Amino acid sequence: MIKAGIIGATGYAGAELVRILLRHKEVEIGWFGSRSYIDQNYASIYQNLFRLVDETCLDDDLEKLVDAVDVVFTATPQGYLASVLKEKYLKQAKFIDLSADYRLKKVSVYEQWYKIKHQSPQFLTEAVYGLCELNRADITRARLVANPGCYTTCSILTAYPLVKEGLIDPDTLIIDAKSGTSGAGRGAKTANLFCEVNESIKAYGIASHRHTPEIEEQLSCAAGRKIRISFTPHLVPMNRGILATVYASLAKKADKSLPKEEEIRAAYQKYYGNEAFIRLLEPGVYPETRWVEGSNYVDINWKLDERTGRVILIGALDNLVKGAAGQAVQNMNLLFGFPETEGLDFVPVFP
Amino acid sequence: MIKAGIIGATGYAGAELVRILLRHKEVEIGWFGSRSYIDQNYASIYQNLFRLVDETCLDDDLEKLVDAVDVVFTATPQGYLASVLKEKYLKQAKFIDLSADYRLKKVSVYEQWYKIKHQSPQFLTEAVYGLCELNRADITRARLVANPGCYTTCSILTAYPLVKEGLIDPDTLIIDAKSGTSGAGRGAKTANLFCEVNESIKAYGIASHRHTPEIEEQLSCAAGRKIRISFTPHLVPMNRGILATVYASLAKKADKSLPKEEEIRAAYQKYYGNEAFIRLLEPGVYPETRWVEGSNYVDINWKLDERTGRVILIGALDNLVKGAAGQAVQNMNLLFGFPETEGLDFVPVFP
Amino acid sequence: MIKAGIIGATGYAGAELVRILLRHKEVEIGWFGSRSYIDQNYASIYQNLFRLVDETCLDDDLEKLVDAVDVVFTATPQGYLASVLKEKYLKQAKFIDLSADYRLKKVSVYEQWYKIKHQSPQFLTEAVYGLCELNRADITRARLVANPGCYTTCSILTAYPLVKEGLIDPDTLIIDAKSGTSGAGRGAKTANLFCEVNESIKAYGIASHRHTPEIEEQLSCAAGRKIRISFTPHLVPMNRGILATVYASLAKKADKSLPKEEEIRAAYQKYYGNEAFIRLLEPGVYPETRWVEGSNYVDINWKLDERTGRVILIGALDNLVKGAAGQAVQNMNLLFGFPETEGLDFVPVFP
Amino acid sequence: MIKAGIIGATGYAGAELVRILLRHKEVEIGWFGSRSYIDQNYASIYQNLFRLVDETCLDDDLEKLVDAVDVVFTATPQGYLASVLKEKYLKQAKFIDLSADYRLKKVSVYEQWYKIKHQSPQFLTEAVYGLCELNRADITRARLVANPGCYTTCSILTAYPLVKEGLIDPDTLIIDAKSGTSGAGRGAKTANLFCEVNESIKAYGIASHRHTPEIEEQLSCAAGRKIRISFTPHLVPMNRGILATVYASLAKKADKSLPKEEEIRAAYQKYYGNEAFIRLLEPGVYPETRWVEGSNYVDINWKLDERTGRVILIGALDNLVKGAAGQAVQNMNLLFGFPETEGLDFVPVFP
Repeated sequence: MIKAGIIGATGYAGAELVRILLRHKEVEIGWFGSRSYIDQNYASIYQNLFRLVDETCLDDDLEKLVDAVDVVFTATPQGYLASVLKEKYLKQAKFIDLSADYRLKKVSVYEQWYKIKHQSPQFLTEAVYGLCELNRADITRARLVANPGCYTTCSILTAYPLVKEGLIDPDTLIIDAKSGTSGAGRGAKTANLFCEVNESIKAYGIASHRHTPEIEEQLSCAAGRKIRISFTPHLVPMNRGILATVYASLAKKADKSLPKEEEIRAAYQKYYGNEAFIRLLEPGVYPETRWVEGSNYVDINWKLDERTGRVILIGALDNLVKGAAGQAVQNMNLLFGFPETEGLDFVPVFP
Repeated sequence: MIKAGIIGATGYAGAELVRILLRHKEVEIGWFGSRSYIDQNYASIYQNLFRLVDETCLDDDLEKLVDAVDVVFTATPQGYLASVLKEKYLKQAKFIDLSADYRLKKVSVYEQWYKIKHQSPQFLTEAVYGLCELNRADITRARLVANPGCYTTCSILTAYPLVKEGLIDPDTLIIDAKSGTSGAGRGAKTANLFCEVNESIKAYGIASHRHTPEIEEQLSCAAGRKIRISFTPHLVPMNRGILATVYASLAKKADKSLPKEEEIRAAYQKYYGNEAFIRLLEPGVYPETRWVEGSNYVDINWKLDERTGRVILIGALDNLVKGAAGQAVQNMNLLFGFPETEGLDFVPVFP
Repeated sequence: MIKAGIIGATGYAGAELVRILLRHKEVEIGWFGSRSYIDQNYASIYQNLFRLVDETCLDDDLEKLVDAVDVVFTATPQGYLASVLKEKYLKQAKFIDLSADYRLKKVSVYEQWYKIKHQSPQFLTEAVYGLCELNRADITRARLVANPGCYTTCSILTAYPLVKEGLIDPDTLIIDAKSGTSGAGRGAKTANLFCEVNESIKAYGIASHRHTPEIEEQLSCAAGRKIRISFTPHLVPMNRGILATVYASLAKKADKSLPKEEEIRAAYQKYYGNEAFIRLLEPGVYPETRWVEGSNYVDINWKLDERTGRVILIGALDNLVKGAAGQAVQNMNLLFGFPETEGLDFVPVFP
Repeated sequence: MIKAGIIGATGYAGAELVRILLRHKEVEIGWFGSRSYIDQNYASIYQNLFRLVDETCLDDDLEKLVDAVDVVFTATPQGYLASVLKEKYLKQAKFIDLSADYRLKKVSVYEQWYKIKHQSPQFLTEAVYGLCELNRADITRARLVANPGCYTTCSILTAYPLVKEGLIDPDTLIIDAKSGTSGAGRGAKTANLFCEVNESIKAYGIASHRHTPEIEEQLSCAAGRKIRISFTPHLVPMNRGILATVYASLAKKADKSLPKEEEIRAAYQKYYGNEAFIRLLEPGVYPETRWVEGSNYVDINWKLDERTGRVILIGALDNLVKGAAGQAVQNMNLLFGFPETEGLDFVPVFP
C-alpha cells in the first residue's frame, strides 16, 4: 500500500483522481491539496464523495508533501510544477504531472505555445511522456512522468500506427477534435456557464491550440521526421468525452502487395492488439463518446475512402479518465509495478 | 459463484444490471435475454460493453433459464412475469422482478392502476417488497422479490422515518418528483426523442401515475393506517437521476419535549444511521442528482419551515442504480448471503 | 416612436429586452447600459446581435439617461434602482424595474427577505405591480412599474383565478417550481458552470426563496386575507423555461350547484378567456416549457384529483420573455398606449 | 397575399415552415399536409402553435393542393416529389422541394448516393438549385426550386468565395460538420432517443453521406472543374445548429501581389458583402451555433495558418432555418418578388 498526494484535488481532473484512487487496492490518498479551498472539507466541495472522503483540503507544501507520500499527482495550471520542482523532491517521491510542463522536449516550443517561461528545463530530458501504450518501458523506470493531454492522448493513439507504419502521408494529417466541457476546467468563467455552452458548438484555439505541438512531437517521432499537423478543438455541450476525427491521405509509397484495408487493420492490430485499454472496434462500427464514458478505454476505428484517397480515423475517450486521471493512475501502476489495469477496470456507464 | 439470468437485458435497467454484475465477485451472467435482439451480439447493442461481454441475446425461455441459473432478473414490461411464473420455477431459482407485477399486495389495486389482469395472484402473498432498508429480514428468506420502482424507492425512503415516527400528518403528503429520461425506457417513441425532451420540463401522469399506489401501500404500512398521497412525476432533460421533493405538514400530536428539529433528525438517524447506501446530508446541504450518479446511494435531507408548519423533505438517487438495477443486486446479495454492498460500492461519477 | 434606455443590458434579461425591442415598431433603443462592459461594442458580447446592434455599452448615468429616453428599463441587481431613483427622474421618464425593489408593498417584508435596506421606500405606494393581466388599468396610469419576477408571474397567474373565486383553500397552496438556468443570471459562478448544472436537478432556496413573499402578497390580495404558501424552486438543465406545479386542496365551502370541474374551468375562463398571452390548454393537455420557448405565452392547465380532494395546477412560461423582458415590454405597451401585443407576437420556437 | 401548401408539415422542417409563414405578411398557409396525422388538429401535434393554428392535417393530394395554393413546399422523404410531380402541377403552382430530389443534376449520381430510382428525371434540367446567395437570378425565374440541404448550405456558402477565386486548392477540401439533432428528423428511432444522443458525440455517414455529391457539384461548378471532397457529419447533443469546419490548403498559384489575408478577406467581401443573411464576422471572432439560433443568418469566418499552409474556414447556421425552412421561404420570396428578407428578419434567440 502506497500513499498518494494530489495537488489540485478540487479541479475536475483532481476529483477524478480521487474517484479512481478511492477504489484502488494499492493506494491510499494522503494529501488533498487545494489552494482555493484550504481547510474546507473536501466532500463539501465534491458532495459525490460525502462519506467516502473525510479529509480537509491542504495548501500546497511540496516539502511536507514528499515526506508524506510516495507519489505526487499535480493537476495544476501550466507552470506550477516547473516553478517548484527540485531534485530532492524527485528523490523522495515519484511525480506524475497532469499539466503540460514536461510534455514537450524543447523549451523553446513550450515557451512559444504556452507563453510562459519554463522554470526547470533541467528536468525535461529526464521526464518521460506518459502515454502508456507507446512508452511503457520508459515509464516503468521514470521518476517524473509527463501525463499527456486529453486531446493529445486521443489524437496520438488514433493516428500512431498508421504514421509509424508509413501508411499515411503525415503532412496531410488534419485532426478535428470535439470535447466535453469538463475539459475546460472548473474555473468560474462566463464562457463556461451552462447557458453559454448548452445548445451550441464552437471551434476554439484554431491553429493555435497548445496541444498541437504535443501531438506533432509524438507523431514526428513515429514518422521519423518533423511533421506539422492541423488541429482544431471544438467545445461540445456534454460533460465528458473527446472524439477525434482524423483525416490523412494514404501514403503513395505504400506496399502494393497487401490490400490497403488489410494493411491498415494489421497496423492497428500490431500496436494495440494486446492493449487492455484500447478497443479496436469491428468494421463499420465507429467510436462514440457515450460508449467510453467513465472508463479508461480508447475506442478506435477507421474508414478507407477510395474515392478521395484518404483514410478517416476516429478515436474516442473520456477526457477525465484516459484523457487525464485514468491515464495518470495507469502511469502510477507502471511506476510502482502494480497490474496496469488495477483500479481502472471500469465498465463504461451508459446512458 | 452463482449464475444469473436477465430477461430484458437490452432495456436500460437490464443493461445497468449487466454493468453492475460484470464487476460482482460472486456472480456470473449466464443468460442475456432479449426478445427484440435474439441472436444478436449483446455488445453490438450496448457498445460500452464491447470486449467485456461476448454473448448473444437469447429468447425468453424460462424453462431452460431456471435450469441454467440461480437467480433470474426480469427487467420486463408489466404483466410479463405474472403471465409466465410457475411454482416449479420458483423452486429452481430465485426471482427478482424489476416490473411492478408483485409490488402491490392487492390484485384489485394492481388491476385498477395498471389496467392489466394479474395472471398469477397466487404469488402475491409470498412476494417480498424488495426495499432493502425496510424489509431486509424478509428479503433474506424470499424466493420472489418485487424490486421497487424508481420513483417509489426515492419517495418512500425519503418520507418513511417521519411517517413511521408520526412526526408528519401523512394525509398532507405531496410528492413532486423529477426524473431523468432513462426512466422512460429505450422504446422508440416520438415523445422521448432528443429534440422532444431536451430544453423542456413537463409533468406527466398527473394524479394517475402507477407508482402512486405503491408509495401509498408502503407508507400506509408505516403510518399504521390507509393514507392517500398526491404524486406528480416530471420529465427532466438529463439521462439519470430522480429527485423527490416531499411536502408534509407537521403532526400536531407530536411530543413537545423535544425541539422539532431534533425529533426529525433523530428519526432519520434511527432508521438510516447505519445504512450503507443512505446518506443523510449535513444541515443545509440538499440532495442533487449529480452527486449520486452511477452509484447506489440515496441522499436525503430536509428543511423545517416554521412559517408554514411544513417540513420539506428531499431525496435523490440514480434511477437506474438504486432505483432499479443496483437495488436488484442489493436484493440478490441479501437473498444469497453475500455482503450487501458487494458489487455496489461505486463512487458517484461527477461531472 | 419613443426611445428606451436599458440599464443592465448585458445580463440575460437585458439582452432579451434588446432582442424584443429591436423588432418593436414604436421603440428605438437609445442607451445600452452595462457597467461591466463600458465602451465595449454591445454586439461583441452578444454576437447574436452582430450587425443588428452597433452601439457601445454605456455606464449608468441616470441623470443623462432620463434626458435621452422616454422609458428606462432596469435589469439590475436588487437594490440598485431603490438606491438611485429620484422624483425628478420619474418626471422625465417612465421606469420599468425588472428587479424586486418595488414589488413588495411593505418595506419590512422586503428587508427581511432580501437582507437589504430599502433606500427609497417613498416610491413603494406609487409603484404598480406590473402583472399586466391582473393590474392592467393601474399600469396604464403608472410612472413606475415593478415588473414581476419570473417564478412569481408563473405561480400567480396559474393560481389566481381559483384563489380569487374561493375554489381552493389558499392555506394549502404548495408551489413546486422548476426553472431553466438563464434565471440564474450571467454572473461567472462555479455553481452555474455547464458541468455543474448539466445532468442534474436540485432544489434551492428551500422555504426561503425571495419570490415567496411576492407570490403571497398577490395571492393574499386575491384571497382577501393574508395567506402563506410553500414555494420551492428547482434548477433544471435547460436554458429557458419555468414550470410551476401547484397543489391545493379544494375549498370545502364551494358552491355545490355546479360540478367542480365546471367551476374551475369557468374561473379560468372568466379571468383569462380574453387574454392574448394566456393559453388555457385543452382538457388533458398539460403545459411543457418547450411549447412557450421564445414567446410571451403562459400556458395553463389543471387536473382535479377527486381521490385526494386536491387540484393540481400547472403553468409554463419562458422566464426571459413573459417572466422578464417580454412582460416588461408588455408593461411598456400599456404605459404608452401601444397595442398590448406589439413586438410580442412571437411564435414559440420548437424544437 | 398568396397561399402556400405544405406537404410534410409535421416534420421539424415542416413545423418550422409553419412558424415562419405565420408571421409572413404576404402568405397564408392553406394546406397542412401530414400523412401521419390526417384529420388531427395540427396544434395538437405542435402545441407551440396552439391558438395560432386551428387547422386539421390533410392527406397528400397534389391534385387538389395545386388548385388551392400558389406555392407548394414539400418537406418530405427523398423520392416523394420525384414520384408524383407532373408538368400540369408545375403549371398551376410553384414548387419548393426541401428533399434532395432535384438537387443533383445527374440522375446517376442521385441514384448512386440515394439508392433510389429517380422517377421524374425530366424535371432535373429545369429545377433550380435554391441557394439564394449564389443563384438568385435563376431562382427568380424558376417553377421548381430544389432547396439545398442543411449541411450543404453551410458548407458551400463557407467555402464558395475561396474556391471561386482560386485561393485554395479544392482537391484538399475537407469538411468536418457538426449538426444538432433536429437534423435527424422526428421519426421514432432508438438512435435518436434523448438518452442515446445526450452526453455523446459521434461521426456518421463517414465517406458516404448523401450531402457529399451536392457539395461537390456546387463547388465543382465554382472551381470550374470536377472536384472531390471529404465530408464527415457529426451528431451533437443540441436541438439546432450546424457548424462546418472546413480545411483547405492555400492554392500555390495565387497572386503574390496581395498579402494572403487580404485576398481572402476581399473574396468573402466580394461575394457576401451585401448579403442580408450572411454575416462575415470580425477578425478573431468565430462562428458558434448559439449566435444564429432561430434566425436565417449564416455566420462565417476563417483563420489563415501560415505554419501549415492551410486556411480553416468556419460557418454556422440554424439547420431548420437557413438550413431548411428559412431558405425555403427566402426562395419563395424570390419566386414571388417579395422583399427577400420578408418574414425572415428574426433576431437570433440567445440563450
